[in-house]
Order: sequence, then C-alpha cells, then structure tokens
Amino acid sequence: MPPFLRHVFVCENQRPPGHPKGCCADKGGAALKVALKKAAAEAGLKGEVRINSAGCLDACEFGAAMVVYPEQVWYGGVQPSDLAEIVQSHLVDGTPVERLRIAFPPKGKPRP
Amino acid sequence: MPPFLRHVFVCENQRPPGHPKGCCADKGGAALKVALKKAAAEAGLKGEVRINSAGCLDACEFGAAMVVYPEQVWYGGVQPSDLAEIVQSHLVDGTPVERLRIAFPPKGKPRP
Repeated sequence: MPPFLRHVFVCENQRPPGHPKGCCADKGGAALKVALKKAAAEAGLKGEVRINSAGCLDACEFGAAMVVYPEQVWYGGVQPSDLAEIVQSHLVDGTPVERLRIAFPPKGKPRP
Repeated sequence: MPPFLRHVFVCENQRPPGHPKGCCADKGGAALKVALKKAAAEAGLKGEVRINSAGCLDACEFGAAMVVYPEQVWYGGVQPSDLAEIVQSHLVDGTPVERLRIAFPPKGKPRP
C-alpha cells in the first residue's frame, strides 16, 4: 500500500499528570487522530493519505501536535473544529493551513 | 525543537496473535526503535534526526517496517544487525540502504 502521497502523524503521547511539558494525549491527541482519519476517508483520501498515530513528536508545548510529510508541515494547538479545514485545504487541495502551523525557531546544521 | 532534518517512524503496532497480516511488534518493532534511537544519539544525531514510535504503518507484511521522512524511504524486514548501517549510511551520510528498501507496487493518483 505505501508510499502515501501524504502521511500525517498525530501525537498521542501520554505523560504523567502534572508534567511541566504537558502532553498531546491530555490535549485530545487520540481523539483527533480518530476524527482526522474518519474525515480523510470521507474526503476520498483512503490509500492516498495515511493518518497515523505516533509517539512523542517532541512538540509537547505546542500540542495537540501533528506533522504532515513529505512536506514537513507541523500543526499545533489543533482542535477538533480545525480538522475539516486541514482535510480540505491541505490534504485535498494541497494548501497548508497557515494559522495552525507551529513556528519553530531555526536550528540544526545541514547534512548530506 | 522540530523540524528535524530526518524523521524516522518505526512501527510498533501489535495485532492479536495469529493475525494473517502479522505485525511489526511481533517482529521486534519496539526493540528496534529503542536500539535505533540509541544508535542515532551515539552517532551525534540528537536533535537533527528524530526516531519516533508509530502505530500501524500499513506495511505489516514487510515488517519490521520503518519509514524515513522527508525523503520517504521505506525499510522492511529490518533486523537489529541492520541498524548500524542505516544510521551510518542513511542518517549520517545521506545514502539510503538499498538492500533494505521495500519495493511497493506503484499506486495512487497525483494530487495538488
């Protein structure tokens, strides 16, 4: 079945209660993944776009977080009410939802 | 911290015993993820390359499976003894390990 045209990883990581970073599970990650998968299937994307659960994406403070590959677009603070726009604008029409993108500071050095 | 220069998702999905597709958990997925994370850190890739656990990647019959983004390289039948080569050749030097790549049949239609 793979490779997928787009592959979305939704963080479902659960940290212990009171952890200073928080976690995506406490911000609805698991329910978001289920709802996004359903919405993508309803939009006819089954087999083309895979909605995947993932462990900690290291974006805890921006949760609930997800990343769309291969374009490497990160979304944070995603609410159930955002999913229809993510599906139609990004996954169907190819236009990322700018208002939900995480603004990470630049880092890292290039590798081959 | 993200975006990462490379982001590796290792399938840890567990299916019930006897499932016809098999599953990556039964093929050592969880241990592979732990060992790959350790090997990548030892190679100095911490912060640049993220080794992530993932739910079912829909490549069950090719497990233990993993995918490297953004280059969308899929590996299957990965053994612990393959990890050093994946780290050095692919994650450090940028050259995928051809012998481990999954040969998926072409599919899907292009989207914008």
